[in-house]
Amino acid sequence: MKKPVSPMNPRKGFLVATLIWVAACLLGSVPYLISGTFNNFIDAFFEAASGFTTTGATVIDDLSSVHPAILFFRSLTHWLGGMGIVVFFAALLPSWGVRGQIAAYAETPGPSKGKLTSKFADTARDLYLIYIGFTACETLLLKISGMNWFDSITASFSTMATGGFANYNDNAAGFSVLAKVIIIVFMYFAGINFNLFYRVRKHGLKALYKDEEVRYYTIFMAVGIALIFTCNLFYLGNRNAGTTLLDAAFHVVSINTTTGFTISNYELWPTFSKIVLFCFFFIGGCASSTGGGIKVSRVIICLKLVKRYFSRKVHPNRIGIVTLNNVEISTDVIIRTSGFVFIYIATLILGTLLISLDDLGFMTSFSCAASCLGNIGPGFILIGPSFNFGVLSPFTKFLCSWLMIAGRLELYTLFTLFTRYYWNPDRC
Amino acid sequence: MKKPVSPMNPRKGFLVATLIWVAACLLGSVPYLISGTFNNFIDAFFEAASGFTTTGATVIDDLSSVHPAILFFRSLTHWLGGMGIVVFFAALLPSWGVRGQIAAYAETPGPSKGKLTSKFADTARDLYLIYIGFTACETLLLKISGMNWFDSITASFSTMATGGFANYNDNAAGFSVLAKVIIIVFMYFAGINFNLFYRVRKHGLKALYKDEEVRYYTIFMAVGIALIFTCNLFYLGNRNAGTTLLDAAFHVVSINTTTGFTISNYELWPTFSKIVLFCFFFIGGCASSTGGGIKVSRVIICLKLVKRYFSRKVHPNRIGIVTLNNVEISTDVIIRTSGFVFIYIATLILGTLLISLDDLGFMTSFSCAASCLGNIGPGFILIGPSFNFGVLSPFTKFLCSWLMIAGRLELYTLFTLFTRYYWNPDRC
Repeated sequence: MKKPVSPMNPRKGFLVATLIWVAACLLGSVPYLISGTFNNFIDAFFEAASGFTTTGATVIDDLSSVHPAILFFRSLTHWLGGMGIVVFFAALLPSWGVRGQIAAYAETPGPSKGKLTSKFADTARDLYLIYIGFTACETLLLKISGMNWFDSITASFSTMATGGFANYNDNAAGFSVLAKVIIIVFMYFAGINFNLFYRVRKHGLKALYKDEEVRYYTIFMAVGIALIFTCNLFYLGNRNAGTTLLDAAFHVVSINTTTGFTISNYELWPTFSKIVLFCFFFIGGCASSTGGGIKVSRVIICLKLVKRYFSRKVHPNRIGIVTLNNVEISTDVIIRTSGFVFIYIATLILGTLLISLDDLGFMTSFSCAASCLGNIGPGFILIGPSFNFGVLSPFTKFLCSWLMIAGRLELYTLFTLFTRYYWNPDRC
Repeated sequence: MKKPVSPMNPRKGFLVATLIWVAACLLGSVPYLISGTFNNFIDAFFEAASGFTTTGATVIDDLSSVHPAILFFRSLTHWLGGMGIVVFFAALLPSWGVRGQIAAYAETPGPSKGKLTSKFADTARDLYLIYIGFTACETLLLKISGMNWFDSITASFSTMATGGFANYNDNAAGFSVLAKVIIIVFMYFAGINFNLFYRVRKHGLKALYKDEEVRYYTIFMAVGIALIFTCNLFYLGNRNAGTTLLDAAFHVVSINTTTGFTISNYELWPTFSKIVLFCFFFIGGCASSTGGGIKVSRVIICLKLVKRYFSRKVHPNRIGIVTLNNVEISTDVIIRTSGFVFIYIATLILGTLLISLDDLGFMTSFSCAASCLGNIGPGFILIGPSFNFGVLSPFTKFLCSWLMIAGRLELYTLFTLFTRYYWNPDRC
């Protein structure tokens, strides 16, 4: 957080990471084409990108007609993409060493990356072990809850990667209440900084709740669930409180962790609840989790900046300090965080504009851009829980695939390649 | 821009400015109540706040039944609010002196305020003379274009204040083409920093086009007009190019300067055009103009921050410099600008959420909050050009009135009063 990571040039990392991701999406589209799931490249590329980036938006109209092998492959792309494809290679190939480290740096989400050590391959393997452990646990629990093995494994892959692909046309609606609760819990874990689990092994559970980002992450969702639960109960009337609570909790956690599982049509909620849910399209998981979005830590820094702004209006000469986990955030990190948020907003606006050329209305276009950029999955209106992304034109599907990749690589990794600074580092 | 303005405590300025504005809105609602235009306080307060803050959103269902005196009064509230009520008092009461200066500071929009001089009352009077000059010019030109005196005067009041109240139910649709063009030109002027006109008297017109903010302000609108014109011509088909261009130009300039005049129902435009127009709901006029919104200079600083972000991704050790008008923007101003934009976004989200309790759908709620906060006037769907704000519940009307006042006082003036820093300056 304090200074640039390494004397090595990060430029190569951006290029390597981007190339690896694009190659993965291209390769990932092959099974869809061979199996005949799609008869055109654009759809296959979209589904592969949606898989690896853990978005979970689908263009398959009828999942019941899809071969189980393809369904398994879809969930597997989630699972591989969740922890980062570069990290995956680094864990497998320790000899890749420091080069892999720099590329992985370009792939890891969040404003601060933690210290990169020379034992990077070890760290990568440790993180993968935690990831595998969680996935195995969830699979077992889902199996115990009454689900079959196939669904348990694919759902666990989707959950832990915060993906959102399901094997059924009604997504996760058909699962038992117990299974839904298990999925909520594991989605919650998947949205937490994985480095913290590493620390839990040493310092116990207090490492989790002492972390400011996890605290805000939990508070945000708790507030969201409370608001939606109250509003739905009040506006929709005559509803079972338990079902309403499960409905609110499942969707808030699913959207905020950018998983994108759905268990009902939230389009039928009152406007207020829909807008609360839509706010979670932007927050996202914690840094270094498998979730997408802006990330909780960046949102916290922005909120603290607002607080500092008001304090300085009253005391113009005081230098307000912004802290995270009781460590001072340097001016530089504040400016970079603001810069990131503005790039996110700019990309969102540009994406919405390009998607709107399909003329499908404001909210479809806007939520489509937000959903792809945040690697979430469903959106609103024409791409809501009852529909899929098949309604989009081929151009828009291709654009959305790139929005997903851009979002997964936290925008700058991909975008920096398109700046003159990248190709003319000495001139600018 | 470099250091706080005065050794005097700006806290008092916030309170005085807020109290003056609230008092003006309360007083301004009296004529509506006495004349029987409204039979309840909420509607009258909304209309008065909408007038003084130069928003131009109306809750009057049928303008043809309203007494001309009230129509004149509505436009007059725009005109008085446009340059700032505090500045108005300061111009009238030179003896108010430095105290007025500090309060006016809290009222003047934009990230940098220019130097405040001891001759503040003189400056205020000079600015008012320019304002009066423009208004007189426009009135004359509109009269020459064939409009009657009454409409010419009220339309000029609305234009120069970037207000948007009109005397007709179809807003400005009934005006002649020439009158529409005249209004476009004067809306454009009204959105420019008034201090520049002051400089034009000394340095000629180059003072205008040499100003970076005016340049971007013009470029933004030119791009917007070109995009909407092309898209409308392409999607709507079989349209007269001249009419389409006038339609696009009028609405882009009207929305971006936050005037809010309308000449047709832009709801019928294709999605792309509507989203381009919606983007202008946020940009707003130049600093120290009569326009609202985020302000062009802040948008420029955010865009330059994005540019710097990418340059630093390639050169992590380089300190990128952000400039405006070839002057370096300090880190402090960058952070304050980011802070302002985040407060704007936070207020927008909170406003949208509260408005959505009316359950009128996402786009109505969102555009209503954006329109009130940016002091624009119309919105989309249920508060689009063919409708008015009468559809809102009394609670929402009251909330919107406060959003307008908050927006006009650039958020912090009002909001700072509600922070603990304000009331406990020594403890925090």
